[in-house]
Amino acid sequence: MVKCHEQLDRTFAALVDPTRRAILARLEREDGASVSELAKPCAIKLPAVMKHLDVLADAGLITRSKVGRVVTVRLSPEPMREAMDWLRRYQRFWSDSLDRLAAYAEGKEIEMQEKDR
Amino acid sequence: MVKCHEQLDRTFAALVDPTRRAILARLEREDGASVSELAKPCAIKLPAVMKHLDVLADAGLITRSKVGRVVTVRLSPEPMREAMDWLRRYQRFWSDSLDRLAAYAEGKEIEMQEKDR
Repeated sequence: MVKCHEQLDRTFAALVDPTRRAILARLEREDGASVSELAKPCAIKLPAVMKHLDVLADAGLITRSKVGRVVTVRLSPEPMREAMDWLRRYQRFWSDSLDRLAAYAEGKEIEMQEKDR
Repeated sequence: MVKCHEQLDRTFAALVDPTRRAILARLEREDGASVSELAKPCAIKLPAVMKHLDVLADAGLITRSKVGRVVTVRLSPEPMREAMDWLRRYQRFWSDSLDRLAAYAEGKEIEMQEKDR
């Protein structure tokens, strides 16, 4: 239970930073990228990108493999599944609001039809 | 776009702490709770709980209303919807793994059937 908490803590903490989210989003579109490729569109320097990659790797959200001098970064999205499962329980509130909105719209429509008669 | 980033930053930052997640989970089960009710099962003191509630309120995840001396806390889960939408794009990776697992299991089954013949 404690271990599960710690993983969720790390996952959410990794997702707080927009640069880290941008890295994950890019790795979602491409099957692996080198560290320098990942650093290119970032407005921050390479050492800062490396630190962000450390946080992502510690949270288990990426893997890094080195061939020669090139480090390839790959997505490892499994921990995000747990984060999504955690958030899923609040889904019924959004569905409830949508149901209420639909009922309201329906009520308005009937009102208009009755006026037209 | 910047504003959207900031909201996601705040939402994920609010979700990092297990005490804050426990408060949100409790508010999901109950329709509103007083601050002292929320503090009761926590192993931490009331001022610390108040600070967690400040973080949750700043992220727009709870609302607080005061009647007399009682502050009632209610869930306001809408910002979590955006967080879940952000995570949803990784869902295909989990489905892909499940598909691969299903294909593997199916292959094994056919193999066994052929052996039995």
